[in-house]
Amino acid sequence: MTGFINYQKVLIVGLGLIGGSYAQKLSLLGFEVGALARRQETLDYALQHGLIAHGRTDVTREYVSQFDLIVFALYPRTFVDWIRKYQDYLKPGAVVTDVTGVKRSVVPVVQELLRPDVEFVPAHPMAGREVCGVENSDARIFANANFIITPTERNTPEGIELIRTLGCILGFRHIAVLSPEEHDEMIGFLSQLTHCIAVSLMTCKDSEKLVEYTGDSFRDLTRIARINEEMWTELFMENRDELLSQMDLFLAQFSRMREALAAGDTDTMKEMMRLSTQRRAYFDK
Amino acid sequence: MTGFINYQKVLIVGLGLIGGSYAQKLSLLGFEVGALARRQETLDYALQHGLIAHGRTDVTREYVSQFDLIVFALYPRTFVDWIRKYQDYLKPGAVVTDVTGVKRSVVPVVQELLRPDVEFVPAHPMAGREVCGVENSDARIFANANFIITPTERNTPEGIELIRTLGCILGFRHIAVLSPEEHDEMIGFLSQLTHCIAVSLMTCKDSEKLVEYTGDSFRDLTRIARINEEMWTELFMENRDELLSQMDLFLAQFSRMREALAAGDTDTMKEMMRLSTQRRAYFDK
Repeated sequence: MTGFINYQKVLIVGLGLIGGSYAQKLSLLGFEVGALARRQETLDYALQHGLIAHGRTDVTREYVSQFDLIVFALYPRTFVDWIRKYQDYLKPGAVVTDVTGVKRSVVPVVQELLRPDVEFVPAHPMAGREVCGVENSDARIFANANFIITPTERNTPEGIELIRTLGCILGFRHIAVLSPEEHDEMIGFLSQLTHCIAVSLMTCKDSEKLVEYTGDSFRDLTRIARINEEMWTELFMENRDELLSQMDLFLAQFSRMREALAAGDTDTMKEMMRLSTQRRAYFDK
Repeated sequence: MTGFINYQKVLIVGLGLIGGSYAQKLSLLGFEVGALARRQETLDYALQHGLIAHGRTDVTREYVSQFDLIVFALYPRTFVDWIRKYQDYLKPGAVVTDVTGVKRSVVPVVQELLRPDVEFVPAHPMAGREVCGVENSDARIFANANFIITPTERNTPEGIELIRTLGCILGFRHIAVLSPEEHDEMIGFLSQLTHCIAVSLMTCKDSEKLVEYTGDSFRDLTRIARINEEMWTELFMENRDELLSQMDLFLAQFSRMREALAAGDTDTMKEMMRLSTQRRAYFDK
């Protein structure tokens, strides 16, 4: 895949934290990176900091049609709308990918909509920060993160390989392939459920007076409670049935612990703690 | 309080992680530290590593009566039993303190039992690790931690001041005074509830296949899911009513999020996320 580096011009659609971080890394690697953003200030920032070579706020055929690879770093609904509106402008043979955190509600829709001469290879870079916006772009967030490709039967081996190479050169630690269904179940449990828990815990009490007593446990469990409510509400809604299942799974275990405590059933409490200790140990290997 | 350093001999009863870490720091500071432990191997380790000057596995009047300050680093019930059995051996005028993580069920009982010529000043060093035992002793765990003194009307200003100085020289970042009731509510929420959540989350699914996809969120929320089941079950049981209240508080918020998601009520979801973000911000000041 030497060719990947030699001739690709990459367009980033949406310069938020993730789009900006993609742009930063790809520019550093020598790609010609263009961008579409809603606001001129975003483009100005990205130009001044060397994240992109050029950019536009308006979507034109002339600009869009020059790119071989287009990365959509938009919210799920905005991404689908863009494809519906502007896919005519895409260069024949172009490859499209995304960074969307939910897959079942996006992948089949976009693949169904899209022209047959353009391939959409879906991906989810599992990286982020508690802050958003292009000015927080930092490609180092990819170094310890997972890159998940979620292809369907419509994808070609070449398309998948291209996006695998993209994940690789962006610096992700681990690259995996899952079906959209497997992805959404996994992300519902590992990411969305944990955010629900953190938000619920953080909203229990006024924390201002608790700050001085707070040890590592509470800080760890609520780090992700600083949350972009627009993005996460959309992600939750797009994965609603799966997230509800994962929440119910957690509720069942939490209620089991509560009932055991209320009943003074220390055997069940200890059994849960032993299982928990044993399973957590996998993570420290 | 220069006198504190000059003439005190300190006895640590119970050489686990916390007892061992107290011993390590106090020995480094030049105190003569003695210890009572159940197993000779524990004492051998502590002697070889300079944590203590001497120690015993049997409790005798001759040994116990030489100490001015006695720190109980035992499980709650074991602490109360020790006092009941051996308090006659304590030197007249001695000060007793503890490290117990629950207070309402321990403090009044011990203060009621204790001879009038010995003062018990309760304290809770809010420090710990995911490992236990004397061989994991490390006084550096105190550096970022809180030290809570929970006196009652039976305590003297001098006794409280002595234990405040103890917390200070052990290196705690922040020393506070709370009532046993305030302490148990706070610890029920900040520490015990968070451990219940972590254990419940960790027991939801077999994690072995999830390890490779796990990002920081899940790792953060389950770090404390490696748990000493004997100690934590006893701590939960000793604070049962308060912990049940805190669990119900969390359940109410989590259920609110679940109902909002199920109903597609994005306004409520966003409102909770905004409140969560605002409250979490206190912690990053």
